Amino acid sequence: MVDTVYRNLRQPDGSAVDLAIADGRILAIEPAGSAAPAEARIVEGDGRLLLPALVESHAHLDKTLWGLPWRPHSAGPSLKDLIANERRVLREVEVPTAKRAGALLENCIARGSLHIRTHIDIDPEIGLNHVEALLTVREAYRDVVELQFVAFPQSGLLIQPGTVELMERALEMGVETVGGLDPAGIDNDAIGHLKTIFDLAARHGRGIDIHLHDVGELGLWQIERIADFTEACGLAGKVMVSHAFCLGMVPTMQIETLGRRLAELRISLMTTGAADFSVPPVAFLKALGVNICCGSDGIRDAWSPFGNGDMLERALLLALRFDWRNDEELASAFEAATIAGARALGLTGYGLAPGHAANFILLPAENLSDALVRRPQERIVVSRGKIVARDGHFLESRQR
Amino acid sequence: MVDTVYRNLRQPDGSAVDLAIADGRILAIEPAGSAAPAEARIVEGDGRLLLPALVESHAHLDKTLWGLPWRPHSAGPSLKDLIANERRVLREVEVPTAKRAGALLENCIARGSLHIRTHIDIDPEIGLNHVEALLTVREAYRDVVELQFVAFPQSGLLIQPGTVELMERALEMGVETVGGLDPAGIDNDAIGHLKTIFDLAARHGRGIDIHLHDVGELGLWQIERIADFTEACGLAGKVMVSHAFCLGMVPTMQIETLGRRLAELRISLMTTGAADFSVPPVAFLKALGVNICCGSDGIRDAWSPFGNGDMLERALLLALRFDWRNDEELASAFEAATIAGARALGLTGYGLAPGHAANFILLPAENLSDALVRRPQERIVVSRGKIVARDGHFLESRQR
Repeated sequence: MVDTVYRNLRQPDGSAVDLAIADGRILAIEPAGSAAPAEARIVEGDGRLLLPALVESHAHLDKTLWGLPWRPHSAGPSLKDLIANERRVLREVEVPTAKRAGALLENCIARGSLHIRTHIDIDPEIGLNHVEALLTVREAYRDVVELQFVAFPQSGLLIQPGTVELMERALEMGVETVGGLDPAGIDNDAIGHLKTIFDLAARHGRGIDIHLHDVGELGLWQIERIADFTEACGLAGKVMVSHAFCLGMVPTMQIETLGRRLAELRISLMTTGAADFSVPPVAFLKALGVNICCGSDGIRDAWSPFGNGDMLERALLLALRFDWRNDEELASAFEAATIAGARALGLTGYGLAPGHAANFILLPAENLSDALVRRPQERIVVSRGKIVARDGHFLESRQR
Repeated sequence: MVDTVYRNLRQPDGSAVDLAIADGRILAIEPAGSAAPAEARIVEGDGRLLLPALVESHAHLDKTLWGLPWRPHSAGPSLKDLIANERRVLREVEVPTAKRAGALLENCIARGSLHIRTHIDIDPEIGLNHVEALLTVREAYRDVVELQFVAFPQSGLLIQPGTVELMERALEMGVETVGGLDPAGIDNDAIGHLKTIFDLAARHGRGIDIHLHDVGELGLWQIERIADFTEACGLAGKVMVSHAFCLGMVPTMQIETLGRRLAELRISLMTTGAADFSVPPVAFLKALGVNICCGSDGIRDAWSPFGNGDMLERALLLALRFDWRNDEELASAFEAATIAGARALGLTGYGLAPGHAANFILLPAENLSDALVRRPQERIVVSRGKIVARDGHFLESRQR
């Protein structure tokens, strides 16, 4: 029954354990040195730190320029500049979407992310091309990584006639989640936008993940309306608000009621921990019970040259953003890149426990805090019991 | 005459060059493929990117816990908590200062920093112990790295009787620069503090590097006074204000006059690019002519568990702090970790030019922006013509 034993791994609490794997799942976590069945393959862990696979809660694999020659950032500063510029850039790029997305995906896996939610652009020009490309990518890496899709109206929803129909078609094709984008700031019709996406989600029995860049009171008012719609549509536990910068723009006492409402409705928040802008006050909102995960957002694309897909680094950036220095705080940053992401994405069987998929990383670090601060690249990434990446390299590349 | 030729290096502008070295200095930078003297040793660069050695403008080598087992952060949140906590921690640590500082120094060199300014704690309890330790360290690594010292009254200056005399003694022992610390916030006597350190500096013909954490108008007022003293003491070009968070706390139009004054008096600023707090508006102040460099500050010490001594990463954090995405902006972040640091530290012969010391790094990156965004660890570090580190490892460790 046990086919592989990963021996002598160190848990964050310091205890040494062996992991017995059967058919890609964890069968048992036992004290190191427990007898292994004679027929099991033994992998020596040499005391490496054992961490659950990382969760990337917010990527844009379809728009990455990963693997291409350096392209200087060329957009103007506003959100609308960025959107228009990206349309120009992606028209020029000759490497197909699936190839770029696959290359970045291999990198994300090699860094230890085995559960990834990516938004996929849908608009009247792109149509469903990106969706089709990402469906191929998902299929090609199905044995290694769990990829979730969000149908994302990057150019606007109501202001781009035809987009709603494309989104609907995307859901039928296998995209799980309904996306949204600044109902007020981009679509100019906050309630119309929310009605549309919540209607789509309710009719298809799906969740929502909405990009909300709108600032200040305009943003806060929309989060209240998102809560209203979540409640009215019975979508508690299935909605995420990504970015939500506005929550960081007012004194925390002004968002206490709203925070409690988000907790009650199990509406998750996603932040990149941006250093240049306001971000939701994570510790304050967590104390109210709000689930907050972190994500990379765009990685080396026409929006931003930044990012490397390393969710340990993302967790560190989150810690730096809030000056979280002690071990408990650092652990909470790590949570945002693991269990909080799993909760937001509705993953089942996530984490290191018997019966769960054997998805984990092994790395040379003393403990969790040390792993975050140093982010060693000498990682062994195990997906469903099998080593799929080492030292930052995905072992069985599907890139030609 | 030419003893070594580093062949086929790529400059940030894309051109391929050979570097001819004679006796640790750059003799010539020529187009790649130029004829090398028969007797010269050839080092093949394989098209690696050539960058000048990095400049670490603000470290605290004497207080690092580098190389020791992980120590959870234990201090309270205020500046005074941090100071008191550090005194407790350093009393308990058994590994000598020189050993810890040397271990961190080797790491900094391995990341590419070959010019480093470190502050050294001086107070009535520590006395000159840290100074003595760091003088030994400087001697041990003299052939590889240029180390500058600041006599730093970490526990306060006037509030700790005896400290001024110790500082004076430190200057006589070989410490170059006079440090200071929150004349108002810690010492409770802004003018008394400034008088004392500027008097020390003037009498010994030295520069000043003052830690200024004091916030808002209190901080701004002290920067004005620092400018007054700089002018009165004829120390233009020899003063640095480290942190200066206060400059980021008011609308930029309120600091324009002060900024112009800093530029005129060539008073440099040092920032870590902190993500959790206000920092000086770098682009605005640079446009006024102010020289601004970046530094690591404490690296894995009782103040903070963060930091890895990588000045490419520090430059990236600065870029992230200000959302500097385009190539020009990224180059300006790199400047803060190189030429601006060299200017602030008063280095002579810094940079890649004939006649200068052959101090540089070679790394697998497409260009400067790519190097910053990815920060590859596969670096070859060359000090005075000789390879001293590879792939993050200092080659001739002086640590037993």
